[in-house]
Amino acid sequence: MASAGDTASNSAERGICVIMAGGRGTRFWPLSRADQPKQLQALASKRSLLRETFARIEPLVGADRVLVITSGSLADATRAELPELPPQNVVTEPVGRNTAPCAVLGVGVAGRIDATAPVALLPADHFIPDEDIFRRQLEAAFVRARDHETVLTLGIPPTRPETGYGYLEVADDGSDSGFRDGVRFVEKPDAATAEKYVRSERFYWNSGIFVWNPDWFAAMAEAHIPEIVARMAPAVAAFGTDVFAPALEEAYTDCPADSIDFAVMEKLPGFSVQAAEFRWSDLGSWDSWGELADTLGNGNRGHADVISVDSRDNVLLVRDRLVALLGVRDLIVVDTPDALLVCRKADAQRIKEIITELEDGGRQDLL
Amino acid sequence: MASAGDTASNSAERGICVIMAGGRGTRFWPLSRADQPKQLQALASKRSLLRETFARIEPLVGADRVLVITSGSLADATRAELPELPPQNVVTEPVGRNTAPCAVLGVGVAGRIDATAPVALLPADHFIPDEDIFRRQLEAAFVRARDHETVLTLGIPPTRPETGYGYLEVADDGSDSGFRDGVRFVEKPDAATAEKYVRSERFYWNSGIFVWNPDWFAAMAEAHIPEIVARMAPAVAAFGTDVFAPALEEAYTDCPADSIDFAVMEKLPGFSVQAAEFRWSDLGSWDSWGELADTLGNGNRGHADVISVDSRDNVLLVRDRLVALLGVRDLIVVDTPDALLVCRKADAQRIKEIITELEDGGRQDLL
Repeated sequence: MASAGDTASNSAERGICVIMAGGRGTRFWPLSRADQPKQLQALASKRSLLRETFARIEPLVGADRVLVITSGSLADATRAELPELPPQNVVTEPVGRNTAPCAVLGVGVAGRIDATAPVALLPADHFIPDEDIFRRQLEAAFVRARDHETVLTLGIPPTRPETGYGYLEVADDGSDSGFRDGVRFVEKPDAATAEKYVRSERFYWNSGIFVWNPDWFAAMAEAHIPEIVARMAPAVAAFGTDVFAPALEEAYTDCPADSIDFAVMEKLPGFSVQAAEFRWSDLGSWDSWGELADTLGNGNRGHADVISVDSRDNVLLVRDRLVALLGVRDLIVVDTPDALLVCRKADAQRIKEIITELEDGGRQDLL
Repeated sequence: MASAGDTASNSAERGICVIMAGGRGTRFWPLSRADQPKQLQALASKRSLLRETFARIEPLVGADRVLVITSGSLADATRAELPELPPQNVVTEPVGRNTAPCAVLGVGVAGRIDATAPVALLPADHFIPDEDIFRRQLEAAFVRARDHETVLTLGIPPTRPETGYGYLEVADDGSDSGFRDGVRFVEKPDAATAEKYVRSERFYWNSGIFVWNPDWFAAMAEAHIPEIVARMAPAVAAFGTDVFAPALEEAYTDCPADSIDFAVMEKLPGFSVQAAEFRWSDLGSWDSWGELADTLGNGNRGHADVISVDSRDNVLLVRDRLVALLGVRDLIVVDTPDALLVCRKADAQRIKEIITELEDGGRQDLL
């Protein structure tokens, strides 16, 4: 670990961070909306999750080495949220094509800024309160990715047999400077399998945070998604010029909509896993948000002026009015000016079904 | 029944209706508030329950033979709701002293308008959609009360073993012109007893609607609550004069707070019961309100713009916003500008516990 510390200032100069900020975050409806999705909401602090993500990495790499990939309709809101960024560093996808084109574009544009820099791909909407620890571990990953043809991921030591996350399996045989050899990516397991994973101590939750050696990314992308690489190449070359936007339009038209996880990550000959030492939540649902939110008495959590009579363990986000609970347990109640959600905690992952009903009913104003 | 019909116009001229409209209706919080209680809310139609009660009786007796007893703080709102009433016909109690002083005052003031008229005492906040049937039966009661020293009550044939109502027991031996001899008043029974009552066909729900022969009321009140009669006498005598208000203040100061049910009704040597032929609900809770409210699909009822996913049998009153339900059953959700209620249907009778918490917390603005 001493060597990583010795090269900290150099590696910090050389890493580039690409924040993937194009999600809709429908599980946080009715707070999250198409034009103000999850990453733009202040779900974990008084600042938006995107702003928190930026604040977490900016001291390490500097604002000009942060790229944000988002959708066109969110470009203005995203730039307003991160005024320190050079405007061109907010890159907008003309249409969503899953994660592989987005990753190829992000790593490609990072290479235009610094062709030899290791590149971190980061979700915009996670909760990571221990910023110093996070930066130290991200820096260590940059150092290693600069010197090794590999990809590194921050694996979260599992604290429960979660069935809602993907897992990373690592080899038994120890670690090299805090990094363990990854064996495979595992999709969301069933409960019994998840139990085994947690007991084995050879599995981590996949945080979705990856640090790539840029040459290695290029090689792997060329090997597994050559069509996407070919389509993106002219747009990447046009970054910083007047023709970047039309080149992007051209690149995304008819581009395959592949997942970077399925198309590339799961086919890698190897990868490295660094066990995260920071607290982490993907804030995947109102339920998981509730676990991190303020306590409100009687096991209720969230943000609300609440009267709770014979009611326990509810998750509440109710602003600008009192909420009175009587005889209710394990509910989620979220109040916004034009929509009110009342949902069983166990159904927190099913909010997309409400979105579908709204879409089917032509209720665009509520999406 | 022919004789009742023959004297309809006479009896209609002679009956007087006293609407008891002083309740707080706390079970309908957060809609019902201290300054806009249940009877002033449009819970059963587009008009307030008080307005509906007035509209139901006015064609029978005329507006000048309708008295409303309410509290001082509701006087203006009550007069505004019933502009046809002579202003003095809205009588305000200086303080609440349970129902016996209110009944003595109401029947007494009715006697100042017409000393020989039978007097109906009516709740302000019940739901009775079949107005014509109601008026026909009330008229029949007036006719009988004019000619007999008795009190008549409209008993509701029970449709379920309700434990939330008082019951009236009648004698086995038939009826006289549609009236059966009452045997006793029964307080709210337990479930097993209520089952027996319903099967016996000798029990009715107590609607709280009573029609008194005025001389009989005077005799019974004098016999059972002489102190209250004595206290109210000067106020009754001052009705229609400048000194009515101070006389009322004097009468209510230190007046015993007795219940007319306990202090008089349950001690009567006899009474008559007319089986109601109209639909009736006392709208005793959000739950019973829901039974009469519009259907919203999936067994949900009430008034709301609702998306219901895997949710059933909820009672909703949500105005001015969408409510989305996911995985929830048998809940009550009531939304107002400054307070939101989420309550298990089975706990609908416990809303007073929320009121108590609000009072204890000094939240007068929400009461």
